[in-house]
Amino acid sequence: MSMKLSALARELGLDYTGADIDIAGVNTLDKACPDELSFLVNPKYLSQMEKTKAGCVLTSGPYADKVPNALVSDNVYMDLAKVVDLFAKPQGCLSGVSELAYIHPDAQLDETVTVYPFAFVGAEAVIGAGTTIFAGAYIGEGTTIGTQCIVYPNAVVMGGLSIGNNVIVHPGAVLGGDGYGYAQTPVGHRKIPQIGTVQIADNVEIGSNTTIDRAALDTTSIKQGTKIDNLVQVGHNVEIGEHCLVIGQTGIGGSTVIGNGVVLAGQVGVPDNIKIGDGAIIGAKSGVSGDVAPGVTLLGAPAMPAKQYMRAAGVCLPKLPDLFKRVKKLEKELAAVKAEAASGEDDE
Amino acid sequence: MSMKLSALARELGLDYTGADIDIAGVNTLDKACPDELSFLVNPKYLSQMEKTKAGCVLTSGPYADKVPNALVSDNVYMDLAKVVDLFAKPQGCLSGVSELAYIHPDAQLDETVTVYPFAFVGAEAVIGAGTTIFAGAYIGEGTTIGTQCIVYPNAVVMGGLSIGNNVIVHPGAVLGGDGYGYAQTPVGHRKIPQIGTVQIADNVEIGSNTTIDRAALDTTSIKQGTKIDNLVQVGHNVEIGEHCLVIGQTGIGGSTVIGNGVVLAGQVGVPDNIKIGDGAIIGAKSGVSGDVAPGVTLLGAPAMPAKQYMRAAGVCLPKLPDLFKRVKKLEKELAAVKAEAASGEDDE
Amino acid sequence: MSMKLSALARELGLDYTGADIDIAGVNTLDKACPDELSFLVNPKYLSQMEKTKAGCVLTSGPYADKVPNALVSDNVYMDLAKVVDLFAKPQGCLSGVSELAYIHPDAQLDETVTVYPFAFVGAEAVIGAGTTIFAGAYIGEGTTIGTQCIVYPNAVVMGGLSIGNNVIVHPGAVLGGDGYGYAQTPVGHRKIPQIGTVQIADNVEIGSNTTIDRAALDTTSIKQGTKIDNLVQVGHNVEIGEHCLVIGQTGIGGSTVIGNGVVLAGQVGVPDNIKIGDGAIIGAKSGVSGDVAPGVTLLGAPAMPAKQYMRAAGVCLPKLPDLFKRVKKLEKELAAVKAEAASGEDDE
Repeated sequence: MSMKLSALARELGLDYTGADIDIAGVNTLDKACPDELSFLVNPKYLSQMEKTKAGCVLTSGPYADKVPNALVSDNVYMDLAKVVDLFAKPQGCLSGVSELAYIHPDAQLDETVTVYPFAFVGAEAVIGAGTTIFAGAYIGEGTTIGTQCIVYPNAVVMGGLSIGNNVIVHPGAVLGGDGYGYAQTPVGHRKIPQIGTVQIADNVEIGSNTTIDRAALDTTSIKQGTKIDNLVQVGHNVEIGEHCLVIGQTGIGGSTVIGNGVVLAGQVGVPDNIKIGDGAIIGAKSGVSGDVAPGVTLLGAPAMPAKQYMRAAGVCLPKLPDLFKRVKKLEKELAAVKAEAASGEDDE
Repeated sequence: MSMKLSALARELGLDYTGADIDIAGVNTLDKACPDELSFLVNPKYLSQMEKTKAGCVLTSGPYADKVPNALVSDNVYMDLAKVVDLFAKPQGCLSGVSELAYIHPDAQLDETVTVYPFAFVGAEAVIGAGTTIFAGAYIGEGTTIGTQCIVYPNAVVMGGLSIGNNVIVHPGAVLGGDGYGYAQTPVGHRKIPQIGTVQIADNVEIGSNTTIDRAALDTTSIKQGTKIDNLVQVGHNVEIGEHCLVIGQTGIGGSTVIGNGVVLAGQVGVPDNIKIGDGAIIGAKSGVSGDVAPGVTLLGAPAMPAKQYMRAAGVCLPKLPDLFKRVKKLEKELAAVKAEAASGEDDE
Repeated sequence: MSMKLSALARELGLDYTGADIDIAGVNTLDKACPDELSFLVNPKYLSQMEKTKAGCVLTSGPYADKVPNALVSDNVYMDLAKVVDLFAKPQGCLSGVSELAYIHPDAQLDETVTVYPFAFVGAEAVIGAGTTIFAGAYIGEGTTIGTQCIVYPNAVVMGGLSIGNNVIVHPGAVLGGDGYGYAQTPVGHRKIPQIGTVQIADNVEIGSNTTIDRAALDTTSIKQGTKIDNLVQVGHNVEIGEHCLVIGQTGIGGSTVIGNGVVLAGQVGVPDNIKIGDGAIIGAKSGVSGDVAPGVTLLGAPAMPAKQYMRAAGVCLPKLPDLFKRVKKLEKELAAVKAEAASGEDDE
């Protein structure tokens, strides 16, 4: 597939500079060919743009005159997303319901649903229009999946769950496994059966091999537009608000409530039973230790305001051994001063 | 299903207060309906209990008179587990061995075993009474699984392993993948084949997408009653004692030996070749750096006694930049005092 | 199977001491029987060697005379790998292409390929000689897999990827899931379709439930001989050099470039868009905060030279509360000295 730059510009509602060339794909500045479009956001890569063979570069006004052909945008990432959409080929090579899938006779599938071989759809599961269930995926009994969803290979959506529209569940993700709940008894840990559910709202994305536990009772809830990266753990009864970003290998303890627009960077740890306010940002590898106010940026373990952590742990901590020496020297010197003074007094 | 409160109380050996209502389910204080039972452990939620619509609240003596109908318990969590058991419906919608499963002709399955479509059971695998193997699960050749186990969808139990009774393997967990063992050679890392096994004792639970490596030689061993959460990594030749709690995203290096009743909180890192004594507790996100004595509570990376860490990293570290200023001021002032003294001496 | 010690020694090009016994297997010093070979590298285990029942011990010259029968090696781990290879039985119990697998008619499989039941091979996938695809594994359309590879159960290799020769993909690993890329818009995070690929070079090993994202555009690349442990996250467009060791639960942010021979220990966090030089070693649980020079050893979060971190965080941090007390005492004493001096001056 290829299209004229003029047609592309029209499609996106953007202006372009230079010749009306044919565009056949999208690539990085470094790798793009003359019939491909590339993009520049970060001026750090200006030198790459100057050397690129890309036929056209999608960029913002200030950089547009650095290349012969530019597509000029105020939100390069958003327009890049739109361009890539035009050229992207979705994963997969089959359509319709495979005869090699298992569909329980009491399941209800819209006629536009695709189910790959070896996928399992349990009793009374309901799957909406345009949704694709890849090979080896498991949809438990009574689970409802909305329209235009993708459940990638070997993802597991246990029974009794509710998944919205336009949800993407990446390969190997597990939704609705049991929460981690035990009663302590004199003879060991007794399992508290986890009979709650998981609700995933519209436009949520769940990364590869991420695990989202079902509630003990009630609901674990991920609200609309939230994007969860790979290998993230979400405990039972957690509630994550709208449009959050939860980045790789983060773990969230049970019953914690997270507001809207929160960012949890990679490998963050959030304990049980706390609240994180709207718009808070928790830096990578942080260990949150209690409620977090809206809008703050925290870092460290235990987490503190990010600037404070960078000063304390980034700047001061490495110099701490030296500080011990300085204090020891002060102690010696002060003792000497005092001894001197005392001997002076004695002299008197 | 529903049952009289009096019957429920009799079943659990507990007393109740108030009317002998019908109970049809269990829910949170916040969500329970008048025909549901709820529970209270933490007095933090007393205000919710006062507003609950639950027909009955399972709680301990001191709080029982706050609601019209209470079920009075000395171990609320344990009795909650028992109540939920009564109302819980296990996951799954099939029974018996599916014709769509692959069962090797040399495998031995008890006649009460359930195997879902697309599960794989290898040669000479042995599966005990009442065990359920969900869709897409893999049971390797020669592996023995006891009675009343559940292997959830897409879990992988490689060949030659030994799994006890009442073991639960959550979706996507991998038992018996190769340990990480290489010989350094001038031309790169040469794989040391991992020919040992994994032994999982009775009443162990393995979380979703958790990985437990087979031993290089010999055995990786998880002893009875230990509960492992999601996304945990257990290295080759590790031994974990009885009744431990290993919480989400913890990693345990090869050949480490962990005692009984140990708690490893979330995202803990434990290195290779160390010993952790019985009853030790390692706080969330800690990085253990050497052997751990029985019964201690550690925190931090490198881990130290938890109170010490909270004082050092929680209280003092944020004030460290200020301490540097104070020391600098002391140095200046002391220099001034010494200069003054010296000039005084000069004066003399 | 069993073989004469003399034959074993000849096979490995090593000398042996003692009688020419039969060797039937390999085991630990602790567990080995008289017809098994064991090994000793670390002198810490000398006392175990003195008590071992092993028929023969593979060890280096200095320890060879501690047992009646020794196989003497200059690189015990490498020779252990070779011995274990002789006795190891690979996982699996089938060969050939199962009729219960799904092979797209346009896929190309070498005639020596093994495909287990319920594996899925997409359109135009190409699989080389001697490669085994276990049950439940997914090979996407257009993906090329080289010779002598193993794709273990329920591993997912999405479409359009390129996998070299002698590559091992452990159970549940996900290669080529979407990278985490969104454009910020006033109405939420808009997905940037991830249309790049993943290239895995020869002799690479990918651990259980590890996730390697496809590039946004272009390629995520793992170069030859690199060994990746379990539950590791590799972001989109990352490049990892040759012969690296990436240990359990490490996470690597998008577009980061890692040199050759780098070691990332367990639970390390590496951010987006940085470079790590050849031969660098990043200690367990570290959080790298910027480019890393070749050959350095870093530790901590933010990471600093390992010795400095051990002094600062391991030695000094626990004593920090005490340091605060010492400084407070100094301040008081100095104030007293100054007051004294001042009163002395007043006296004058």
